[in-house]
Amino acid sequence: MSFLLRPLQADDFQNGFLETLSHLTTVDLTPEEAVRIWRGRNAAGVRTVVAVTGDRVIGTASLILEHKFIHRGGTIGHIEDVAVHPDHEGKGVGSAVVRELVELARLSGCYKVILSCSDDNLTFYTRLGFRRHDNGMRIDLK
Amino acid sequence: MSFLLRPLQADDFQNGFLETLSHLTTVDLTPEEAVRIWRGRNAAGVRTVVAVTGDRVIGTASLILEHKFIHRGGTIGHIEDVAVHPDHEGKGVGSAVVRELVELARLSGCYKVILSCSDDNLTFYTRLGFRRHDNGMRIDLK
Repeated sequence: MSFLLRPLQADDFQNGFLETLSHLTTVDLTPEEAVRIWRGRNAAGVRTVVAVTGDRVIGTASLILEHKFIHRGGTIGHIEDVAVHPDHEGKGVGSAVVRELVELARLSGCYKVILSCSDDNLTFYTRLGFRRHDNGMRIDLK
Repeated sequence: MSFLLRPLQADDFQNGFLETLSHLTTVDLTPEEAVRIWRGRNAAGVRTVVAVTGDRVIGTASLILEHKFIHRGGTIGHIEDVAVHPDHEGKGVGSAVVRELVELARLSGCYKVILSCSDDNLTFYTRLGFRRHDNGMRIDLK
């Protein structure tokens, strides 16, 4: 099976991007609402990559670039919202979108990339070169 | 001991902000370089709070707001770079800056706040209402 990797584009919102994300958790957005959010994310420097087969999105992941004061004003990348359409699991789509973002982070000058993952995904990310570094903590506000 | 909490401002770069951060890790920036980074962070929507006593910064933490597609276009907060000047540890400064950012995240409509922390800091964040949710992973690029 072959797929291509490229940046998210506007017509993806009607071609499987929201459906792919919805297998991660609730999405519940119209394509029009999603385009407005996308513009805000672009303005903040968030980069979303998609894996496509034909014109259908089957995978996605996003990279937030954070410009720090520490490490001589160094940049780090946060990987978020890695999702693969369930019809296309086990074909290397998830690995490919994560690798693409790590490479994008490298080209953007990041000194590290971080993410948080469940115990179930530890092996997946370890194979991609990540190591467990610390604890992912959360507080729910709603 | 009393201290105030407020947003980072330009003269903090010459009044202990960089020194406070340098106890976390290398900073090695001039105040002028730091101001340029600060402008970029402001443009990206990063919020940095400081604890001050008189005109000296003795603590800091930062909040990145991430506008997601998931959860009906929900927003989450990432807390980063929590630092307390070593001369002022054990006085509640760290708790205060983190609580301030959690409240800022709540006012900004976030449905959750996340951060990653070492095993040594698990108790500190648990007392502030955080729970261990998953694993903090990293890959070093430099």
